[in-house]
Amino acid sequence: MSNEINRVPHAAGNGLLDRRLFLRSAIAGASTLALTAPSIAQWVGEGQPASMLTPGSGMEAYGLPAKSELERVKRWTIPPGSGGRPMSWGGLTPHHLLHGTITPNGLHFELNHQGIPDIDPQQHSVVIHGMVRQAAKYTVEQLENYPTVTRQHFLECAGNSSVLAADKPADPVMTLTRTHGLLSASEWTGVPLATLLDECGVEKGARWLVVEGGDSGSTTRSIPLSKAMDDSMIAIFQNGERLRPGNGYPMRLFNPGYEGNTSIKWVRSIYVSDKPVHSRFETSKYTDLMKDDVSLQFTLEMGCKSVITRPSNTSKLSRHGVYEITGLAWSGAGKVRKVEVSADGGKTWAEAELQVPVQSKMLTRFRIPWQWRGQPAVLQSRVYDEKNSCQPTRKELLAAIGGYRHYHYNAIHSWSVDKSGEISHVFA
Amino acid sequence: MSNEINRVPHAAGNGLLDRRLFLRSAIAGASTLALTAPSIAQWVGEGQPASMLTPGSGMEAYGLPAKSELERVKRWTIPPGSGGRPMSWGGLTPHHLLHGTITPNGLHFELNHQGIPDIDPQQHSVVIHGMVRQAAKYTVEQLENYPTVTRQHFLECAGNSSVLAADKPADPVMTLTRTHGLLSASEWTGVPLATLLDECGVEKGARWLVVEGGDSGSTTRSIPLSKAMDDSMIAIFQNGERLRPGNGYPMRLFNPGYEGNTSIKWVRSIYVSDKPVHSRFETSKYTDLMKDDVSLQFTLEMGCKSVITRPSNTSKLSRHGVYEITGLAWSGAGKVRKVEVSADGGKTWAEAELQVPVQSKMLTRFRIPWQWRGQPAVLQSRVYDEKNSCQPTRKELLAAIGGYRHYHYNAIHSWSVDKSGEISHVFA
Repeated sequence: MSNEINRVPHAAGNGLLDRRLFLRSAIAGASTLALTAPSIAQWVGEGQPASMLTPGSGMEAYGLPAKSELERVKRWTIPPGSGGRPMSWGGLTPHHLLHGTITPNGLHFELNHQGIPDIDPQQHSVVIHGMVRQAAKYTVEQLENYPTVTRQHFLECAGNSSVLAADKPADPVMTLTRTHGLLSASEWTGVPLATLLDECGVEKGARWLVVEGGDSGSTTRSIPLSKAMDDSMIAIFQNGERLRPGNGYPMRLFNPGYEGNTSIKWVRSIYVSDKPVHSRFETSKYTDLMKDDVSLQFTLEMGCKSVITRPSNTSKLSRHGVYEITGLAWSGAGKVRKVEVSADGGKTWAEAELQVPVQSKMLTRFRIPWQWRGQPAVLQSRVYDEKNSCQPTRKELLAAIGGYRHYHYNAIHSWSVDKSGEISHVFA
Repeated sequence: MSNEINRVPHAAGNGLLDRRLFLRSAIAGASTLALTAPSIAQWVGEGQPASMLTPGSGMEAYGLPAKSELERVKRWTIPPGSGGRPMSWGGLTPHHLLHGTITPNGLHFELNHQGIPDIDPQQHSVVIHGMVRQAAKYTVEQLENYPTVTRQHFLECAGNSSVLAADKPADPVMTLTRTHGLLSASEWTGVPLATLLDECGVEKGARWLVVEGGDSGSTTRSIPLSKAMDDSMIAIFQNGERLRPGNGYPMRLFNPGYEGNTSIKWVRSIYVSDKPVHSRFETSKYTDLMKDDVSLQFTLEMGCKSVITRPSNTSKLSRHGVYEITGLAWSGAGKVRKVEVSADGGKTWAEAELQVPVQSKMLTRFRIPWQWRGQPAVLQSRVYDEKNSCQPTRKELLAAIGGYRHYHYNAIHSWSVDKSGEISHVFA
């Protein structure tokens, strides 16, 4: 098998192989256990496991993961009280344990500035008012009679990866959950906001929506009217079922590609205006302090970004051979066009295979084979989106923003592999 | 608003409107509550709900739906002992309460002939043996080092809708769950089976795989080798997370577009052979008895099929106006090409809007606006797939199969609407 691999042209330095390698041969390199005839006979005959000897169990009306999975696969929840913000509770998605592009609802990230409100869906509605011909109020039941749309989109917190803006790691082990866990993706179904705004009749001169949630933090953000008329929706369903409480049940605004907090959860009021409101969520939070001590407001669209999810620093390379390097890439501006991977810290790059269909403002899974023979390596990925933006290096990003900004951190991420196969996060 | 609707060209009889109507205007017809200035002031000021007055709750490491949703949205579980098959436990997906195309894992259908086995993922592996150069054994951990693929696909039980083959309804109310609940869709991630077969080296003359699960029913099916080399996978992840126990944890075979039971759960043995094995799951079950008393075996690919999920007989039309008719369409042969909807029991048809991207062997959501003014109606949908197969009427299907067969029932489904807005299932 190793002879066969030697005939495969390398796509970039330090062991990166052609992305089509996996498609045309079985050079997987995993150390599978070859079997002899007697062991097969035993497997098929007497080797039956306990699970085959007694009937199994029944099922629940609403199923759960296996117990062993629930112990292993968790959101990392920020305990209340951390960072001096007593009610900002976060739950982060463990992408190193997941695979594919959809995040199961139970593991979708959350960041709740005043906890999760307990809302009776029968009592809840959203009001559209302000600069409209006719103000109106919509319950969930009424919205269910409106034309709907279904789309798969990522949701990323503006502060995702912000721990990487500081030179000192916040934790001894900077896991993928810690650095990239404020990111998830779902299939969202709801009513286009444009439909409701059209029904209310937006008045001339209107430019902004001031949107408020029904939580005790009264989370409020100003959204450009143009965005709402483009692709925002009032989402009611997430991955087929109604929204989860921590994700806005019974309804939320969803702004594809925008920073997560603008997709106001538990949405109750949409005020049509000629100007933004400058709420505390767009003054004290979610602004970008620049080098010249000026803050940028309303940097709403998330940049293009990618990260390698496997291998990562929660596992170790246990053998020499071919590995699949895989990760996620996304852009708030539209579709991912290309992902490149480096195994030598950015000296040389090879193009990764993208999982199709590539969808706009959605996570895209990328993969490339890599041959590891015990050599030290620094694994990186970088994405180009359809607007031709390219993910910056950390050095480039920090030079541009001056080290103050911590929202919208989208620099190239690096995993260092040592001779023993140990993996750690490094700035490279 | 009704004047505006009158100017819209009708797309077919009995109120079907052009599918692009929703895209260009706000003629939703839902009876929203118009608001006056005092009521808005109250909403924005004193009308704050309890959820805004006290901090909300924290979050769980693995989240669940809202309590009120868990009471409402359930799989319909067939109690053990029904139908004389003491251990065939089913759980059916409630599509009338869901929306989009992905089925959340907790509501994915299951049909377990001997219950759900309790399998330790550390102890489990799958063996590939028989007509191969080198037999091999793969644990989950080993498979995780192989090249992976991610695809969204439906899974449908061969017996889905079989209750509709009989002229007498099995239940007084034939709900959508009862008739179409053995159908779900997920994003599946796993290792292409072709990769593993290539590694083992399939011998000349091999034509079939005999695949066995690790349940106490020892569920066994014969799969054509050509299918396995085309698009079958050993699935490890479902909607991003590891498989659920009832769906094959820790690994299952997945055959896109094939009848569900062939996607062997808890897969433990793949025997490469020159012939099928004629297991009891392809003799006493899952064969199609024809008019001439001959049984068809190995009718593996699911036909093209569609069903309207809203409105359905668990709700009632509560007002005159425009409704969105929406449903799901799919085909085991590939992509859905077109869906047509009728409001007059099949006399006239209008083309519905398909949610993009349309994916191969995946549920496709369709939608069309319909104006209801209190007239009786029979709502139907029919699908055409990319191979140009068309969903048959029930009459056509029964004429072809003679009334014996109950697997692979894919006829057009009919909802009758009466003057009062009551909806019931009818044969039409």
